[in-house]
Amino acid sequence: MPLQDYMQLISTDDHLIEHPKLWADRLPRKFLEAGPRIVEMKMGPNDRLAEVWNYEGRIYPYIGLNAVAGKKPEEFGAEPTRYEDMLPGCYDPAARIIDMDIDGVHAGVSFPSFPRFAGTVFLEGEDPELALLCVKAWNDYVLDEWCATAPDRLIPMIILPLWSVEESVKEIHRTAAKGSRVISFVENPVPLGLPSFHTDHWDPVFRAATETGQPLSVHFGTSGKAPITAPEAPMAVMIALFGCNSMYATADLLFSPVFHNHPDLKVMLSEGGIGWVPYMLERMDQTWNKHRFYQNINQTVKPSDLFAKHLFGCFIDDEHGLVNRNLVGIDNITWESDYPHSDSNWPNSRKVVHDLMIDVPDDEVHKIVELNSRKLMNFPRTEPTV
Amino acid sequence: MPLQDYMQLISTDDHLIEHPKLWADRLPRKFLEAGPRIVEMKMGPNDRLAEVWNYEGRIYPYIGLNAVAGKKPEEFGAEPTRYEDMLPGCYDPAARIIDMDIDGVHAGVSFPSFPRFAGTVFLEGEDPELALLCVKAWNDYVLDEWCATAPDRLIPMIILPLWSVEESVKEIHRTAAKGSRVISFVENPVPLGLPSFHTDHWDPVFRAATETGQPLSVHFGTSGKAPITAPEAPMAVMIALFGCNSMYATADLLFSPVFHNHPDLKVMLSEGGIGWVPYMLERMDQTWNKHRFYQNINQTVKPSDLFAKHLFGCFIDDEHGLVNRNLVGIDNITWESDYPHSDSNWPNSRKVVHDLMIDVPDDEVHKIVELNSRKLMNFPRTEPTV
Repeated sequence: MPLQDYMQLISTDDHLIEHPKLWADRLPRKFLEAGPRIVEMKMGPNDRLAEVWNYEGRIYPYIGLNAVAGKKPEEFGAEPTRYEDMLPGCYDPAARIIDMDIDGVHAGVSFPSFPRFAGTVFLEGEDPELALLCVKAWNDYVLDEWCATAPDRLIPMIILPLWSVEESVKEIHRTAAKGSRVISFVENPVPLGLPSFHTDHWDPVFRAATETGQPLSVHFGTSGKAPITAPEAPMAVMIALFGCNSMYATADLLFSPVFHNHPDLKVMLSEGGIGWVPYMLERMDQTWNKHRFYQNINQTVKPSDLFAKHLFGCFIDDEHGLVNRNLVGIDNITWESDYPHSDSNWPNSRKVVHDLMIDVPDDEVHKIVELNSRKLMNFPRTEPTV
Repeated sequence: MPLQDYMQLISTDDHLIEHPKLWADRLPRKFLEAGPRIVEMKMGPNDRLAEVWNYEGRIYPYIGLNAVAGKKPEEFGAEPTRYEDMLPGCYDPAARIIDMDIDGVHAGVSFPSFPRFAGTVFLEGEDPELALLCVKAWNDYVLDEWCATAPDRLIPMIILPLWSVEESVKEIHRTAAKGSRVISFVENPVPLGLPSFHTDHWDPVFRAATETGQPLSVHFGTSGKAPITAPEAPMAVMIALFGCNSMYATADLLFSPVFHNHPDLKVMLSEGGIGWVPYMLERMDQTWNKHRFYQNINQTVKPSDLFAKHLFGCFIDDEHGLVNRNLVGIDNITWESDYPHSDSNWPNSRKVVHDLMIDVPDDEVHKIVELNSRKLMNFPRTEPTV
């Protein structure tokens, strides 16, 4: 049996759809109009009445692909949607637990949806006071309401007010005291107009992350730069290429001073897949072997050794990656469900993982589906293993 | 013996440095001032007198990494250089043959250097008449001078006047009659301001390529878009990530109508490596399985089947790719030397290939190092195999 009953699936990458009242319940009265609230609006090719977020007058629709759990691929579409079109597990934590039970998933981390995976929507805020309160409200919702529903099943992730290192550090410590376990960060700050990993700008944030024992999750797409090849290219091109964003983040981080200055920092490459990792490690080591002498990069530690210590691949159903798991690193792989997105295998995750792992030894399966994630996010099991 | 003596190494990706007289020898007198000519200019951190190209008053330096064959990695650098700093094999075809003999390489295709790998410098030309003559001069130099030095060793590649489909088609037929074997094209036309693979704009070019039995070589970087993550990122990041450009080209082409409309068209992913191919095929097929129904993409042929028929990986020393050669496709792999660039293993190519292929059966080695390239470029052996 490749996936034993005692192994609990821990997903390092799920998504929650924000409840319509998330900000209304938490913002001071003066911000209720400008803060994020759901409005109805005709959108899409069929001119359907969609529910969209209004934040300071700017409109942010969800797209249908954000909440397709339970739909057949034939029913997928990219048009804006309504809450009533979604499974309640998208936005209701008690319903989420039921959907996780159906899927055989024990625990999971959920990224934001409307604020984008690393909360970068709040970088667009005109009022910085409101933007900071919006970030705190999302974090408080996750800590006090979403995860509080089932503290051993829902793992708290926080977002940061990325425009301020000082406020980001404060928010990390404030939320760590309330139990946060992982920090959603960006795969590359530069396209967002923020300083790169090759500056010392983020050092206080990385220090706060390691001081509070939390990894960073850098979900693909969080740079705001999608792998789009042409205006007319079908979306399939972008979907197929999103793993390249995680390759970019990997090379960018491993050739930067970040891990040399923060020897305890861990970074998860959320939804990046793992099948490309052996190729990239080989390519980065070749580059380092031939090109380090005339460049301002670390001269003593090769990128693949740095990867083994600091980076973690996250996969859904990556066959080639699993066959080559020893080259990726058995300790560097975590599993994810991606509920309720289109890449998810819900409600068949356990079956899919079982089939994928058919040739993998028990102890390796256990690390990959559960133990690596628990250790990384400091989220120990509350009940005995067997 | 994994690399038998009777197997001739055919390189699908080398580079020539243009002789200073290439255009002076071929352009009409009225264009001698505006056409490309070598001038001396102080450049680089040491204010050294470099030889650079002047084309219509614009300056195009070579960078040192373009011609490092024979240097140790410790001597690599990116500063501009002079002809006297290069091995003569960079710009002299008779000397190139000697360098190929030293390296144990039988035949090779050379891309342009100053005009960039697909001649896109001439897209920048102010005078279209001059630009067209410059493209023709490069092609005539390659056909009449460079390759004529050793027709069974130097395989003619041409570039196109990409701004004009009509002139490109004419140039393909003109040069095919003179013996050209492969066409350098761009990995993605969009960043160059040209129509994408998802339009019918290039159909006459693709038709001319198949009518004359020539593959397209799309070298990484020919879109003009380099994988740069940050202004301060060391060049190692870009070097490590260049294979992503070939992944982009792969997904872009396979989800486009190109191969459905041109069932005999072949495309080589020059310098793209092959280690990522199994991952990308899996990812593209997953994307196609889940996302084709609502998109304007071919509904019957899955991307991996299309890859097998149309795309060819080109590798220098890609260990992971070779171990997984059956997933890439034994018939879809070609070898390259990359002389005189920094990725080349000159003068040890034969030794490196030998070691890389140590566990590969003879017939597969022969296909990968010689037969696939000969077939693809219609460049048959002139002497018996054994």
